[in-house]
Amino acid sequence: MCRFVIYKGTAPVQLSHLLTRPCHSIINQAFDSRLRLDHRRPINGDGFGVGWYDSVYDEELGSQPCIFTSVTPAWNNVNLTRLAEKIKSPLVFAHVRATTAGTLSLDNCHPWSYGKLMFMHNGGIADFPKIKRKLQMALPDELFNMVTGNTDSQWAFALLLSKLPDPKARSFTPSVLQKAMLETIAHINALLEEHGITEPSLMNFCVTDGESVVATRYISSRTEEAASLWFSSGSTFSEYAPGGHYKMSKTDKRENIIMIASEPLTFEKADWMEIRTNHMVVITPKMNLLQVPIIDKFYVPQSDPAALNRGTDFAAAKGFLSPRRDVGRPLDAIENHV
Amino acid sequence: MCRFVIYKGTAPVQLSHLLTRPCHSIINQAFDSRLRLDHRRPINGDGFGVGWYDSVYDEELGSQPCIFTSVTPAWNNVNLTRLAEKIKSPLVFAHVRATTAGTLSLDNCHPWSYGKLMFMHNGGIADFPKIKRKLQMALPDELFNMVTGNTDSQWAFALLLSKLPDPKARSFTPSVLQKAMLETIAHINALLEEHGITEPSLMNFCVTDGESVVATRYISSRTEEAASLWFSSGSTFSEYAPGGHYKMSKTDKRENIIMIASEPLTFEKADWMEIRTNHMVVITPKMNLLQVPIIDKFYVPQSDPAALNRGTDFAAAKGFLSPRRDVGRPLDAIENHV
Amino acid sequence: MCRFVIYKGTAPVQLSHLLTRPCHSIINQAFDSRLRLDHRRPINGDGFGVGWYDSVYDEELGSQPCIFTSVTPAWNNVNLTRLAEKIKSPLVFAHVRATTAGTLSLDNCHPWSYGKLMFMHNGGIADFPKIKRKLQMALPDELFNMVTGNTDSQWAFALLLSKLPDPKARSFTPSVLQKAMLETIAHINALLEEHGITEPSLMNFCVTDGESVVATRYISSRTEEAASLWFSSGSTFSEYAPGGHYKMSKTDKRENIIMIASEPLTFEKADWMEIRTNHMVVITPKMNLLQVPIIDKFYVPQSDPAALNRGTDFAAAKGFLSPRRDVGRPLDAIENHV
Amino acid sequence: MCRFVIYKGTAPVQLSHLLTRPCHSIINQAFDSRLRLDHRRPINGDGFGVGWYDSVYDEELGSQPCIFTSVTPAWNNVNLTRLAEKIKSPLVFAHVRATTAGTLSLDNCHPWSYGKLMFMHNGGIADFPKIKRKLQMALPDELFNMVTGNTDSQWAFALLLSKLPDPKARSFTPSVLQKAMLETIAHINALLEEHGITEPSLMNFCVTDGESVVATRYISSRTEEAASLWFSSGSTFSEYAPGGHYKMSKTDKRENIIMIASEPLTFEKADWMEIRTNHMVVITPKMNLLQVPIIDKFYVPQSDPAALNRGTDFAAAKGFLSPRRDVGRPLDAIENHV
Repeated sequence: MCRFVIYKGTAPVQLSHLLTRPCHSIINQAFDSRLRLDHRRPINGDGFGVGWYDSVYDEELGSQPCIFTSVTPAWNNVNLTRLAEKIKSPLVFAHVRATTAGTLSLDNCHPWSYGKLMFMHNGGIADFPKIKRKLQMALPDELFNMVTGNTDSQWAFALLLSKLPDPKARSFTPSVLQKAMLETIAHINALLEEHGITEPSLMNFCVTDGESVVATRYISSRTEEAASLWFSSGSTFSEYAPGGHYKMSKTDKRENIIMIASEPLTFEKADWMEIRTNHMVVITPKMNLLQVPIIDKFYVPQSDPAALNRGTDFAAAKGFLSPRRDVGRPLDAIENHV
Repeated sequence: MCRFVIYKGTAPVQLSHLLTRPCHSIINQAFDSRLRLDHRRPINGDGFGVGWYDSVYDEELGSQPCIFTSVTPAWNNVNLTRLAEKIKSPLVFAHVRATTAGTLSLDNCHPWSYGKLMFMHNGGIADFPKIKRKLQMALPDELFNMVTGNTDSQWAFALLLSKLPDPKARSFTPSVLQKAMLETIAHINALLEEHGITEPSLMNFCVTDGESVVATRYISSRTEEAASLWFSSGSTFSEYAPGGHYKMSKTDKRENIIMIASEPLTFEKADWMEIRTNHMVVITPKMNLLQVPIIDKFYVPQSDPAALNRGTDFAAAKGFLSPRRDVGRPLDAIENHV
Repeated sequence: MCRFVIYKGTAPVQLSHLLTRPCHSIINQAFDSRLRLDHRRPINGDGFGVGWYDSVYDEELGSQPCIFTSVTPAWNNVNLTRLAEKIKSPLVFAHVRATTAGTLSLDNCHPWSYGKLMFMHNGGIADFPKIKRKLQMALPDELFNMVTGNTDSQWAFALLLSKLPDPKARSFTPSVLQKAMLETIAHINALLEEHGITEPSLMNFCVTDGESVVATRYISSRTEEAASLWFSSGSTFSEYAPGGHYKMSKTDKRENIIMIASEPLTFEKADWMEIRTNHMVVITPKMNLLQVPIIDKFYVPQSDPAALNRGTDFAAAKGFLSPRRDVGRPLDAIENHV
Repeated sequence: MCRFVIYKGTAPVQLSHLLTRPCHSIINQAFDSRLRLDHRRPINGDGFGVGWYDSVYDEELGSQPCIFTSVTPAWNNVNLTRLAEKIKSPLVFAHVRATTAGTLSLDNCHPWSYGKLMFMHNGGIADFPKIKRKLQMALPDELFNMVTGNTDSQWAFALLLSKLPDPKARSFTPSVLQKAMLETIAHINALLEEHGITEPSLMNFCVTDGESVVATRYISSRTEEAASLWFSSGSTFSEYAPGGHYKMSKTDKRENIIMIASEPLTFEKADWMEIRTNHMVVITPKMNLLQVPIIDKFYVPQSDPAALNRGTDFAAAKGFLSPRRDVGRPLDAIENHV
């Protein structure tokens, strides 16, 4: 199982406030397994990565993100600690990894980038080796050869890129990214079905071009819960008590910060809302947040009682379910905007 | 906090049976924290080491141990996995590390060797920086310059070597090693006292020359429990159920295997006996096991009720107490021999 | 460019004599570039690997080789230094790597193993990305999914495995390995031709099952020289002068040691014979050595003057030509046996 | 032997122009050993480090430098490549390392920092283990315990810090840094003399507080040349031909860039001037450059013919002499200012 966090703010965040200082950051979560069910697998000690965009556009530096990855655990990485104190960014992806698929290698560390785009995944595609060849066939040569690692996630990124009109474009609208994301999931589902694979796949994907963010909470099942995904917004994210105790504050009506994470990153229940299973959230360049259902054969409308009764055993057994279901509230209020 | 295991057998063990295959090996313990109290520190993901002696003496290869260390977590180290399948040894030290002191570096990975001797430590010397200079002054140049890392543990090894008549000798009697061990602890205690340091130090040290093993369970306190230390012996150590479930069997009267570990390595309570706080255990070349009290001002005789009422908070807070106190029984029966 | 060495002996060699002690071992060659032409590329600092078979068969340990790999340079790897002092083997493959293709990752370090088989490569397949998909199509699922890295070399190994009647067999005859090797080269050539790739490919491949060794010196060109490949045999390989000066001695008529290497490993010219371009050498389980021409459209018979006039620019520009052409003599005398 | 480069500019430089893109950067020098004499030691494949100060002061980020280090070779480090494309700085220290002293460990990678200060070294203190204890005695506890590695260089940094009135000060004048540097060298010389060590020590030290830079070219010998040190200044440093061919241009009278390096970083002879042996160069906050003789018993005045006849064998044998003595001209013209 893995963990990730997305930060988008109107002002840049010092990476340390997101990664190294909070006692409940994804890096410190990496060894805080109080409520973890799967004790036989290591948790998130198998490499990590952080990708970010510049605070200020500089023509010489370009608009692609910068990515720092490591195969040693994040909690003890002096380079990460030092960089996180010195780098500020308005849009950050961070990911800690457990090797459910793929070997321990920088090539397998999320996030990955291509041109302006950055991508990461929390979950796993069921029986991926069985569909790997067919997935590859759908890719143009350049994207086929771009993949350096051996994870299902990086191939999913290549597939997503192949769904874009021009993956090297200078800019993307949110709807172009949304459409590519939906097609990626649909394509993977078609391959799984074609190969008779019925075990659910957990596809919490995130993509950004540095301006918009599209993230999914998705499972190819009508009866099981997806890997967990949470949302928080506010005007400041800061330490309220020594020892890395952070909270999201809403000091005014504006929402300057949006965070999406596989687990709540603070102990304040009210800070976090759960994103619905089989929904996509979109953060627009202007910081609006949309929650859009992913309507396919695995979709169960909210009006159907089954929507609330998805089982948690599958995601939990895989280690992808945040057990704090009592934390927070569903993301209803913001179905349309923040 | 760290974890370690010592194996000594009349027959060599394939390292995989000790390290990589058992579901409760120190490597798998490294992320199984069901009962761990200290959730804010990573557990044992900060490097590991294994040292072993040859099964058969080969003049060309010499009598020194071989050591393999890594700064990436043991649970996902392909070299360890491959070597453990191919190496057999009658005497093995293995150690997983959390950086309570010292940076993440191969230089700081236990065990260390010097000539025929091999050493490791589980615990921590309180306020070590304050006594470091004085400790160094006690060392001859060669031992002073031998230390490549920055841990209290490696300096303790250098100190122990300085207590031996000839640390490069071809062989050592158990009593020579015992005496050096006691002097090392006494020396450190003297330095701590001289500097007014009253916080207890946890000194579970192990040393071997490839034939005898001397291990301590020691704390510089009359009222607190030392870091945990367990003992098991039997005739075979093997997998009794799929999934890495191992147990120690006593198929005959002979004791062919002795294991000493910071935590029980099997789920069988009866397999493990607890070594008493402030005692030293000695495994002789002929596989006898002695338990000897370390009698100094921190010693509380068994006859004194206080001996059973040492507090567990200190060691637990440091993460050095195996919480399975109900497992096993005290090592009384074998006070004098196995 | 890479470097490799193969050792097969009637007696096991301590790995240090092959790897770490000789001043002209492939590891020390890694930074001795006196005669290197390509100064713009790093030489062999991008990881290394060594694989070996046990000296004595042990049922518990099995017959597969053990492999140790690293992404840090071999010349300064303490684990390699320690292991090399303690391991003896009668059949060793060692490889140092420069990243002409593939990222810096353990997955990309040669040699690789599969069951009893071990494989490594020195060279490069021209325009490999163009033929990668087609090559993959020829593989059964298991071999397709076995490949964890992103090098042409590991895919070539998978292809070779696919040419064997049973890649997991308990034993192989030399002729079975030879046939698979020839088919692998032919298959790659067919793919290259199909894609209109005319740049030569350098295919010095080595495979062993722990008993026989098959190695090629091959280029898909009639006019260019292949990457260099050398051969030495004798009765002892030992240090004759301090500082790691080794030589091969022939103290009696028996040939107990055969070494094949991308470059001569000693300074003694007479020790090394050059293997002919587009030939395959075979070491049989009983230590006979055969040199067999690889007869296809790139073969030029020795009787044809063009055979002696192959150009050296291509291999040299790629960094694959040992410039010591004046060293040694061609391997004629041993065309049929040692 | 090691290599380093210092960059100070009125405008920030993108690190890639200094490190990863130039064909003759210290990273690419790391494997370009055309003229290297010492072929038995690896050249600069044993880790590297780069430290830089922010382009714009940000109160939240503070004024300390950021440091990125690695134990894998710089030439193939994807994190370095990515960071170097995204980071700009007006003051950069970069260092590639060969393990003449100290093990391969992040703790041993230059540069190191302390508060606002940053330090690196090219050279070696003769017989350092013999003076190590005495040097340590001169340090206050905090500096004694700051040293995490085992190199002579990091201890020299600690010593230099101990010579400052307040090593954690908010700012330093150039003369304060100069004085501390001279006292550091004098202190080491005194220790060497006290221990009867007559082999010369190579002490090319650099220190900066982010505003001033003090660098020495120094050897404790009257007859031998120090490790090489070069200087270049101009208005732009840019690529004039594809393939990483850079040069320093003087497009106007202003000197916006000063570089100090252990070897010329461009092929343009006229770009580089040699700093005199046993001199100190100082770059002031306002970009003036001073060259000051270090007058002690190893100083030979320019007027003495012996100053031009220092032997090159010692530094060359140690691998610390750039062999391009014909490149450039001595730094006379700028004895007093740029």
